[in-house]
Amino acid sequence: MSGAFRSRRSSHAVRVRYADTDQAAVVHHAAYLAFLEAARIEHFRAHGFDYAAFEAATRTGLPVVELRVRYRSPARFDDALEVETSTAAVTRFSMWLEGTVRRGHVVLVESKVRLACVDMGTERPWRLPRELLDACLEPGWEL
Amino acid sequence: MSGAFRSRRSSHAVRVRYADTDQAAVVHHAAYLAFLEAARIEHFRAHGFDYAAFEAATRTGLPVVELRVRYRSPARFDDALEVETSTAAVTRFSMWLEGTVRRGHVVLVESKVRLACVDMGTERPWRLPRELLDACLEPGWEL
Amino acid sequence: MSGAFRSRRSSHAVRVRYADTDQAAVVHHAAYLAFLEAARIEHFRAHGFDYAAFEAATRTGLPVVELRVRYRSPARFDDALEVETSTAAVTRFSMWLEGTVRRGHVVLVESKVRLACVDMGTERPWRLPRELLDACLEPGWEL
Amino acid sequence: MSGAFRSRRSSHAVRVRYADTDQAAVVHHAAYLAFLEAARIEHFRAHGFDYAAFEAATRTGLPVVELRVRYRSPARFDDALEVETSTAAVTRFSMWLEGTVRRGHVVLVESKVRLACVDMGTERPWRLPRELLDACLEPGWEL
Repeated sequence: MSGAFRSRRSSHAVRVRYADTDQAAVVHHAAYLAFLEAARIEHFRAHGFDYAAFEAATRTGLPVVELRVRYRSPARFDDALEVETSTAAVTRFSMWLEGTVRRGHVVLVESKVRLACVDMGTERPWRLPRELLDACLEPGWEL
Repeated sequence: MSGAFRSRRSSHAVRVRYADTDQAAVVHHAAYLAFLEAARIEHFRAHGFDYAAFEAATRTGLPVVELRVRYRSPARFDDALEVETSTAAVTRFSMWLEGTVRRGHVVLVESKVRLACVDMGTERPWRLPRELLDACLEPGWEL
Repeated sequence: MSGAFRSRRSSHAVRVRYADTDQAAVVHHAAYLAFLEAARIEHFRAHGFDYAAFEAATRTGLPVVELRVRYRSPARFDDALEVETSTAAVTRFSMWLEGTVRRGHVVLVESKVRLACVDMGTERPWRLPRELLDACLEPGWEL
Repeated sequence: MSGAFRSRRSSHAVRVRYADTDQAAVVHHAAYLAFLEAARIEHFRAHGFDYAAFEAATRTGLPVVELRVRYRSPARFDDALEVETSTAAVTRFSMWLEGTVRRGHVVLVESKVRLACVDMGTERPWRLPRELLDACLEPGWEL
């Protein structure tokens, strides 16, 4: 599915908001997707890829096309969470990013999210931009 | 603030989703804004104004520029709510719509929302479209 | 993973709200989770299982513990969608439900969601209630 | 409406997430309510009132019972915002907090939110806790 590479990693802090909770007194399962998305954007930024500028300049985007999430233990209101992001697999047109949500050492949520690169007007697939791959992978990667 | 008019009215049914609740086991205060917005769109449609088509055709929109909400009693998960929409005031560039959320005969939330008409590219104000006013006001209105 | 059964099916209509969209002018990937959740609740209700009453009476719930989603084509503002729900697999403590989001005949999103039954206070697993299985499976099912 | 007091102030940073935007390519008007709410919680914490602990210990909460928002200029994806919180008025049973959202020196959103103190089981009103008032008001306040 991909050539040789080593993934970069980063960690992003998220404080659980009241609005993220549901009446089970835990974070609603959909709210984690926004945490994971925010962590991806910060992951890109931390490694030199400014997603907002990229989208504005090229009118291509990186929509989520596939998603696998395992909810192991609930997060709660006001929890201070860490979301770790890394790259699991890359092809020319899409990539799988892993996102792990932790509270301290406890893993709460594990996820894999596949992003594709598409033209935001026509929705046609586009090659992943080199700047994105440079941000996600250690130097020397090959696809 | 406005000339003589009589407002049209409509009622829109909303079922409270689990995702709308928070850990107080009631609907989160922000979730009502989506209910009210959905009810406005249906109100417009019921009276002949297709908001989605309008926005796509003209690249002007009707953003919320002001909001007043009174939360009287909480809605809960799975409640079958009714949201009534009507027009409270109109000027050339903006209008106040009232939205009332009820469960049966009990008023849960009262709101006034001011919509302005703006060019979605430049954000410059635009006159409210005649089709919108015809949808919201009874025939014979004057501004 | 499960004994012999035939799944019940149902379809639930969802109108896309403005709040469901993002700046790519499509429905945000997290918003579908609320559509799918609402469709599950209606699926249960259509077949005789009142989830809200169940949760209130037993203080057990059915949290999402695993999720797989494939986003094939984007939904847009004001789209009239249909969400079909059925059961893919059942064990004593959890079940996989399938949810498919369509606009007309076009499949937009395919999902599998695993629900577990847990005590909402202690989070301990609980057997899936018989009324739930009767709602999801055709008569004569065995686990 | 209230006795003599001087308000404490605080500022809370919010980064706009992709999920906060809508198809007008601006932050959806409901998303600011979550920003304002998060800023209130941090405001309380910064001045010694731990809202999560308070709610857990007393089973009383501080629901939003009234809301006034003025949207002056839109926030956009990835904007680094500051949300300033202060107290505008206090009575025994409720208080008005002001929240102002800025990007740099530009005021984007002004709000007043009235919080009441209620028993989360019975929904009966409760006096505002002294620790909350001490957190929101400078020493020497009187009601």
